[in-house]
Amino acid sequence: MAELAGSALQQALGRLVVETHGAGFTDVSAAVDDWLARERAGNGLLTVFIRHTSASLVIQENADPDVQVDLLRRLDWIAPRNAGYVHDCEGPDDMPAHIKAMVTGTSIAIPVQNGRMVLGTWQGLYVAEHRDRPHRRELALHFLGEVGRAD
Amino acid sequence: MAELAGSALQQALGRLVVETHGAGFTDVSAAVDDWLARERAGNGLLTVFIRHTSASLVIQENADPDVQVDLLRRLDWIAPRNAGYVHDCEGPDDMPAHIKAMVTGTSIAIPVQNGRMVLGTWQGLYVAEHRDRPHRRELALHFLGEVGRAD
Amino acid sequence: MAELAGSALQQALGRLVVETHGAGFTDVSAAVDDWLARERAGNGLLTVFIRHTSASLVIQENADPDVQVDLLRRLDWIAPRNAGYVHDCEGPDDMPAHIKAMVTGTSIAIPVQNGRMVLGTWQGLYVAEHRDRPHRRELALHFLGEVGRAD
Repeated sequence: MAELAGSALQQALGRLVVETHGAGFTDVSAAVDDWLARERAGNGLLTVFIRHTSASLVIQENADPDVQVDLLRRLDWIAPRNAGYVHDCEGPDDMPAHIKAMVTGTSIAIPVQNGRMVLGTWQGLYVAEHRDRPHRRELALHFLGEVGRAD
Repeated sequence: MAELAGSALQQALGRLVVETHGAGFTDVSAAVDDWLARERAGNGLLTVFIRHTSASLVIQENADPDVQVDLLRRLDWIAPRNAGYVHDCEGPDDMPAHIKAMVTGTSIAIPVQNGRMVLGTWQGLYVAEHRDRPHRRELALHFLGEVGRAD
Repeated sequence: MAELAGSALQQALGRLVVETHGAGFTDVSAAVDDWLARERAGNGLLTVFIRHTSASLVIQENADPDVQVDLLRRLDWIAPRNAGYVHDCEGPDDMPAHIKAMVTGTSIAIPVQNGRMVLGTWQGLYVAEHRDRPHRRELALHFLGEVGRAD
């Protein structure tokens, strides 16, 4: 692909609030692409950052929902409840949630082409909630690249 | 290090296809640095993104190949076959591959200095294939920074 | 949040050396924000990259220090010593350290607003040392965004 010179680079900073429904994956791909469209993003780089330590960001298969079932079960195996945690004052699901967030991650950088994340065919961008109860999770969004003209 | 002002920032978007040989690590450090050279990248930021959910990106030791053997074995322990997965229609290596990809990651951002990734002495950038069979894996590359003059 | 146009984008490349005290978390949030201040960073994107394969970067809770105790214990469970590793020439803590680094990660991209990382209230940015002994760890820092005027 050729070098993308000639158009001034700009940036946009945004925020996306995601209501989760307890432990599980919430697909935010469309909401993030909508934000890119509102910012008139062209080619560039998107960074998604979750401002929490008991929820995380995961890019995973968006085709068969069973995949998410197995991913969650394996996270439960990696970070079970009642494993003798020292930090237990916030409930039995809290420390496992921190561990799950640690091994999955807080930030993802994704190239953007013609205003859309370059996700593969079977990739979705998910907020992974690791607490039992629904939470309001905040994502910080950053785009840096070409911003389209209004004409 | 001083602020790098005075030179206009540009970006480049690229694509690298990697043929894997079944489960294991493929070093893509040189191929990525070659792309940076072709784009005449100077100082800036490189983002590497893999467009798949059963392969991932890992930065790990490039000195003793035994390290990779142990990393792969431990990933097999974290995500074994035949663990009673619900998603089993794509073969016994598929769901483990998704889990391994989830705990290792899809995207890596690496500062670039004088046209080269600032990897440490013992660091290599690898595509980690988690399926048994060889696959054709596609990486999206994004560089943002100073692009060198042709003189 | 509105598009941040109108101010020329610049970049800065830096380096932060962190002395660790053996296995554990070292909070580098303040040191990184100090670097942003020295570079007169405004709004933009920060990338932190660790140039090692037996230490890693983790964003986790900064409130209750017990959380770190449990995170470290669970990493020890994921990557125990004496698990029959092929790579054992650098000591019993070396191969576990590589595994721990692999599942936590080498690079984190964080949006910056008004010169500060947009960390959540309970988030801290940590260097996670996975070797037993103290080490001198080097971080590469990259900022891309608006750089404030000196007036």
